[in-house]
Amino acid sequence: MNMTELMKAVVTTIDENEPLSEKNVPLPSVGNYDVLVKVAATSVNPVDVKQLELAMAAKEERVLGFDAVGAVVSIGSEVKKYKVGDRVFFAGELGRTGSNAEYEAVNENLIAKAPDNLSDVEAAALPLTFLTAYEMLADKFGIKMTAGSATGKALLIINGAGGVGSIMIQLAKWLGMTVIASASRDETIEWVQQLGADFVVNHRKDYVAEVKRLGFDEVPYIAVLHSLDQHFEAVAELVGPYGHIGAIVQSTQPLPVGLIKNKAASLDWEFMFAKTNARQDIASQGDALELLSNLVTSGVVKSTISQTLDGLSVATIEDAQQKVSAGNMLGKLVIKY
Amino acid sequence: MNMTELMKAVVTTIDENEPLSEKNVPLPSVGNYDVLVKVAATSVNPVDVKQLELAMAAKEERVLGFDAVGAVVSIGSEVKKYKVGDRVFFAGELGRTGSNAEYEAVNENLIAKAPDNLSDVEAAALPLTFLTAYEMLADKFGIKMTAGSATGKALLIINGAGGVGSIMIQLAKWLGMTVIASASRDETIEWVQQLGADFVVNHRKDYVAEVKRLGFDEVPYIAVLHSLDQHFEAVAELVGPYGHIGAIVQSTQPLPVGLIKNKAASLDWEFMFAKTNARQDIASQGDALELLSNLVTSGVVKSTISQTLDGLSVATIEDAQQKVSAGNMLGKLVIKY
Repeated sequence: MNMTELMKAVVTTIDENEPLSEKNVPLPSVGNYDVLVKVAATSVNPVDVKQLELAMAAKEERVLGFDAVGAVVSIGSEVKKYKVGDRVFFAGELGRTGSNAEYEAVNENLIAKAPDNLSDVEAAALPLTFLTAYEMLADKFGIKMTAGSATGKALLIINGAGGVGSIMIQLAKWLGMTVIASASRDETIEWVQQLGADFVVNHRKDYVAEVKRLGFDEVPYIAVLHSLDQHFEAVAELVGPYGHIGAIVQSTQPLPVGLIKNKAASLDWEFMFAKTNARQDIASQGDALELLSNLVTSGVVKSTISQTLDGLSVATIEDAQQKVSAGNMLGKLVIKY
Repeated sequence: MNMTELMKAVVTTIDENEPLSEKNVPLPSVGNYDVLVKVAATSVNPVDVKQLELAMAAKEERVLGFDAVGAVVSIGSEVKKYKVGDRVFFAGELGRTGSNAEYEAVNENLIAKAPDNLSDVEAAALPLTFLTAYEMLADKFGIKMTAGSATGKALLIINGAGGVGSIMIQLAKWLGMTVIASASRDETIEWVQQLGADFVVNHRKDYVAEVKRLGFDEVPYIAVLHSLDQHFEAVAELVGPYGHIGAIVQSTQPLPVGLIKNKAASLDWEFMFAKTNARQDIASQGDALELLSNLVTSGVVKSTISQTLDGLSVATIEDAQQKVSAGNMLGKLVIKY
């Protein structure tokens, strides 16, 4: 462990012309139930962009970054499951100092050992998106998280090639589901097929007709991983009786939810930080990451990394945020420290 | 059994000045999996009003009526669970000849034996509303249907004194839940208290503040049994992380569903005819009615009947529909044939 009490971090500023800056800041304090991790790599998610906006609006200096892999360098007095030297991965929580720093403290219930067969950048790509995919399928759609438990059930994923879609395809295939993923470019179509999608439809065309032509008059489970506003009417037409429409990207306008009333369908929001925000059922996230680690080790799930940037710096984080904001990500972008 | 091939029925007409008329119509055909029941009583639900509108718009002559109790007078060749003479109750399905007639044919998977300790009118009050309450709590909120399975969990019921609310209060108490029911008149407040509500709030006042003053900062389960349009913003404020807002009355305008995004909450529609419309999981409705029958027999649940009208006639059905449409029903209105 680096014994200095300061560490390098990229922090949000109150200067809108230069929203991020590199600074030496105190190491995060390590609570009784926390481990302190030397961050080896982080991945960048849309939530980083959103949290940067919020920090600037609130004029707060914060260390962002949600997804990390690294070695445990010290542990709190009550930590039971991890020891110094363990290589762990996690998504952390919104309210604490994040992974855009040399060190990060995190509650032991939110982490798992990283899979041995993945490099740091490969492992860093996964936690936040896996937790989002897992919680939508398990907590929201009510699917039991065991191999083959949803065999033959259809899942339509709108924006299958993005970060969450790329891991959800693999998780759903392990559950036995028939996966229809949407993609619109040659590159993304090939990507979702390699990840295991059974069918591909084009979300820039009339995918309602396309799904029906594939033989699915209705789909019991639909994950909208892009703008819900844009897709609601189409997925409302496709969702089946007692079906579920899951969504993760905030809607900006009122939606005609009455369209799914007579099918007794549900509109389910998933937001993985809702658990830690509410301190509710947080150990389920460490458990889910342990499952992820096992699925990766056994070869069922592979990393969704598609790009790597080098070095903890304002430049790499800004570059990464711009790429993620563009909204056409293939898999995940990771920064190696 | 009445051996004539015609029976008295109240049918919808194509004359908007006289939407219902009394007619002799053929007995319904009894399929291999059906029982034929001599209807002794029916209860009237908002769905009757809605289906009358739809029948008139489509210029269809239909026998409506959804909720019946009566004796089995004949059975189809494949019927296993019931015999002639059994007294059964059920809500039936939308697409068949209903209970506003002397006889009704119904699939054996949709029925259960009526509780011995209830009169015909007391039993007829329950099926449709119980199935609605049961499916919202079981299928939509994911609550296991065993005594005490949700002990201590809070349920807010908007419009607790209506047909669905009156039975949901009792079912939720059996599950161990803490029930906050809304009611606005002395009569309805007393009614929901007698049914077991732990707290009462007034849906015509600022019930968000009232619920919080009772000590509930957030509520995990909310059933909106009245206009969702009118209540959505309030219940969006009250619902907890990973919580559920269930609704049964069609919304007429787009709703700001993004309000519950960061709590990862769900908006769940319940419509009990969605199962029979889709021929999906229909035997669950007979099973649920069997549970209802057991809960009534063991004294856990009592009938929600509040008014009785006499006789199968246009006049009683019109009178009942007017009372139900007024939107301030206390429990259920039943027609005794």
